[in-house]
Amino acid sequence: MQSLKRRILEEGRVAGDGILKVDGFLNHRIDPVLMEEIGAEFGRRFANERITVVLTVETSGIAPALFTARQFRVPVVFAKKAGARNLDDSCYQASVHSFTRDKDYIIQVSRRYLGPDDQVLLLDDFLANGQALIGLSDIVTQSGASLVGAGIVIEKGFQEGGRLVRNMGIRVESLAVIRTMSKGQIEFDP
Amino acid sequence: MQSLKRRILEEGRVAGDGILKVDGFLNHRIDPVLMEEIGAEFGRRFANERITVVLTVETSGIAPALFTARQFRVPVVFAKKAGARNLDDSCYQASVHSFTRDKDYIIQVSRRYLGPDDQVLLLDDFLANGQALIGLSDIVTQSGASLVGAGIVIEKGFQEGGRLVRNMGIRVESLAVIRTMSKGQIEFDP
Repeated sequence: MQSLKRRILEEGRVAGDGILKVDGFLNHRIDPVLMEEIGAEFGRRFANERITVVLTVETSGIAPALFTARQFRVPVVFAKKAGARNLDDSCYQASVHSFTRDKDYIIQVSRRYLGPDDQVLLLDDFLANGQALIGLSDIVTQSGASLVGAGIVIEKGFQEGGRLVRNMGIRVESLAVIRTMSKGQIEFDP
Repeated sequence: MQSLKRRILEEGRVAGDGILKVDGFLNHRIDPVLMEEIGAEFGRRFANERITVVLTVETSGIAPALFTARQFRVPVVFAKKAGARNLDDSCYQASVHSFTRDKDYIIQVSRRYLGPDDQVLLLDDFLANGQALIGLSDIVTQSGASLVGAGIVIEKGFQEGGRLVRNMGIRVESLAVIRTMSKGQIEFDP
């Protein structure tokens, strides 16, 4: 998606150690016009699928998930990050390891909002090591719903998440795949 | 806003002690079609104002803020909740007291994304005791930006936040004002 890649090149900041900061349009300030274009693009890529819900995780997945869900006229459900104290029987739960922060956290989705009749599209801002996506797909499995695929705004192609998730048989559509960003220079897969 | 009030009556759950759960369309599952209607309504109410940025706080303010910002074709900035350890000189900061959780937390906005030339519309899902809105308006003051007003999806008219914030001279537009919800029965201001 060219407009997205242009924004990454113009506004993205490589913060060393494989960290890409896109606070200018996605992770702190959000450009709703770009989000709408992103939603339209996922709408095209998954046009032949029946989707009943878009599932993401707070916080930064919510914006692209919303505009994607609007294309399909279905709701977004966002998994909540919970401390171990907040565990709750009324929720599906999965443990997710954050390599960035080197700790595990729990994500939760209410049983009320996901069930066996659902056809789920996962949506997230980044795919790096794949742990968040694997946690979300675990929740889909627990609910008995069907997993249609995953839409990713920015995939770090030099990390192993994309391979891991695709090897699980999950269709992954990434709008920008970064091949390398060593020495602060961002290069995309074609 | 009638469609919103209907959804609150149909799906809202009064959880005792002044707590209203609207997890079905706003706080856990989000209906993007309703969010778009909400954005259009704020677009009408603030049509005569010049707005350069919509400012909210993570997480539940983001969805209505996004569709409002899209009406004005301006970005959303969402304040991040930070632990005391994450304090950062590059950010404006305000302390917010949560009565629900009986503790204080810090909200932060990068200096990069708010400055003296901005005309800010605050946006949030709930207005109850007003502490989040007062924290956001404090950040606007620190930045030197001008405050246009505040758009609120659901105001708890029986709590003191609305009066507090309006007494500060801030224009508050609430799409649904709950007058009472004692005994599980929700009644709106006309």
